Amino acid sequence: MEGVMTALTRFVGFVHAGAEKYGLLRDDGIVDLSARHAARWPTLRTVIADGALARLADAATGLAADVDPAAVAYALPVPDPGKILCVGVNYPDRNAEYKDGQEAPPNPSLFVRFPSSFVGHDVPIVRPPESPQLDYEGEIVIVIGKPGRRIPETDALSHIAGLSLANEGTIRDWVRHAKFNVTQGKNFDRTGSIGPWFVPFADEAQIADIALQTRVNGELRQSDRTSRMIFSFRRIVSYISTFTTLLPGDTILTGTPTGAGARFDPPVWLKPGDVVEVSADGLGTLRNRVEDEVLP
Amino acid sequence: MEGVMTALTRFVGFVHAGAEKYGLLRDDGIVDLSARHAARWPTLRTVIADGALARLADAATGLAADVDPAAVAYALPVPDPGKILCVGVNYPDRNAEYKDGQEAPPNPSLFVRFPSSFVGHDVPIVRPPESPQLDYEGEIVIVIGKPGRRIPETDALSHIAGLSLANEGTIRDWVRHAKFNVTQGKNFDRTGSIGPWFVPFADEAQIADIALQTRVNGELRQSDRTSRMIFSFRRIVSYISTFTTLLPGDTILTGTPTGAGARFDPPVWLKPGDVVEVSADGLGTLRNRVEDEVLP
Repeated sequence: MEGVMTALTRFVGFVHAGAEKYGLLRDDGIVDLSARHAARWPTLRTVIADGALARLADAATGLAADVDPAAVAYALPVPDPGKILCVGVNYPDRNAEYKDGQEAPPNPSLFVRFPSSFVGHDVPIVRPPESPQLDYEGEIVIVIGKPGRRIPETDALSHIAGLSLANEGTIRDWVRHAKFNVTQGKNFDRTGSIGPWFVPFADEAQIADIALQTRVNGELRQSDRTSRMIFSFRRIVSYISTFTTLLPGDTILTGTPTGAGARFDPPVWLKPGDVVEVSADGLGTLRNRVEDEVLP
Repeated sequence: MEGVMTALTRFVGFVHAGAEKYGLLRDDGIVDLSARHAARWPTLRTVIADGALARLADAATGLAADVDPAAVAYALPVPDPGKILCVGVNYPDRNAEYKDGQEAPPNPSLFVRFPSSFVGHDVPIVRPPESPQLDYEGEIVIVIGKPGRRIPETDALSHIAGLSLANEGTIRDWVRHAKFNVTQGKNFDRTGSIGPWFVPFADEAQIADIALQTRVNGELRQSDRTSRMIFSFRRIVSYISTFTTLLPGDTILTGTPTGAGARFDPPVWLKPGDVVEVSADGLGTLRNRVEDEVLP
């Protein structure tokens, strides 16, 4: 970290005048960084890969904002990650919910989502016609900055470039549609969201013990603290890098607290018009309305 | 299909003089298509997306080969697929191997691999130091040509651009390392392979009932026919497109017959020096030697 970039700096992805862009969100509006830097850095991922986040934040200091946030649709802060990995069960009560008598698992359960399964902040997530069981899962997101393989836990945090939030929206019955694996229930197009923005990672205090909450129509449904995660941020980065080389822009969703709609008796699914909000200290509030998918 | 392109046309990915390229493999050598077309089509995926496979094959007809295959390292035919999806259990005896008394599953089990988990033909796959349980799985690969969502089975084959083979190499104990999902056992860097080449898809007869075999050091270990697949090619494409939009270059590994090393009693794992060969009628033989991973 250098210059004027702080943990309050907010990089955003957005669509404006038909083009997908990235910029800095400030109180006076969005500074359009793509307009100035797209030739060299086409997406925020390439800025991260070049270690140029602070440089671009510095360069924007004297500039007036270009774009009114009310005139844009938010997009994923990093629209083109090479990988999106998700941790399956990572809060103590969540493991107990499975009621299978097992102790906390020895290693994180991991699955993969495609970018097409996510929308940005304030863009509707969709309930597909195949199932009424659209469910929410609020999560902290880490984005890798420095490449690495077999990263020791002691060094893991130095590989994180920034943070975000996710609603890891899930089609619950499709998670168990087959004999193994949750892929299909986790990858319906536009059923989840990432955002509202990308906050540069400063130090461990920024994530070690922060509140993570999910609300549906204002009602608190999930609430926990990152200090209670079964697998810490350090452990997650280290473990994943054991088998795959982590690269700049790679995105990791670090698991959700107890309280998803599936755990109610009877279950409570999201329906059109519902508003899901995922918030965490310092990371803002990711808000998405639910719509029924409109078929062509 | 048009012009001179036939099911005998072989597109290859290769590294030559330090650059990753694509070309046509003929009896007289490789016609370097990247040298002629990279500005417009940087990778074979973009050729597929533009429906330009036949055009490039046609244009190469009168040309002499440029490159000696002995002087290249093969790479993935499509090095940059947006998605690689794998079908988990897709041959009858394989399901029975699980001995859990369940009938054939209602839907295909799906997981995701990253491109970094694969090497090309004739490039060594590696056994990582974390586990001695490197195992083989020979599979037919389909590559999507035409985009689609919710593709009906009747129309599914028209979305296939081409075919290839995979050794869906697996670190067997890491498949069950966590409570759910096989991600980590399926994604160790360079433990699998795709190739030897990409064969344009012509018609259903090309895949409906072909032999698929895997040999280790010449010994037949897996042998079955695609007509016995639990989930047909049509069903796989249709099912996956229910939840995610399939795009050109998307790559689907369609499952492996019985006979992986894990099923022997005691299990037989791959070890350095072993040679794995996956073959299918019309698709050639994908061959990879096993090496111990060399750590930096």
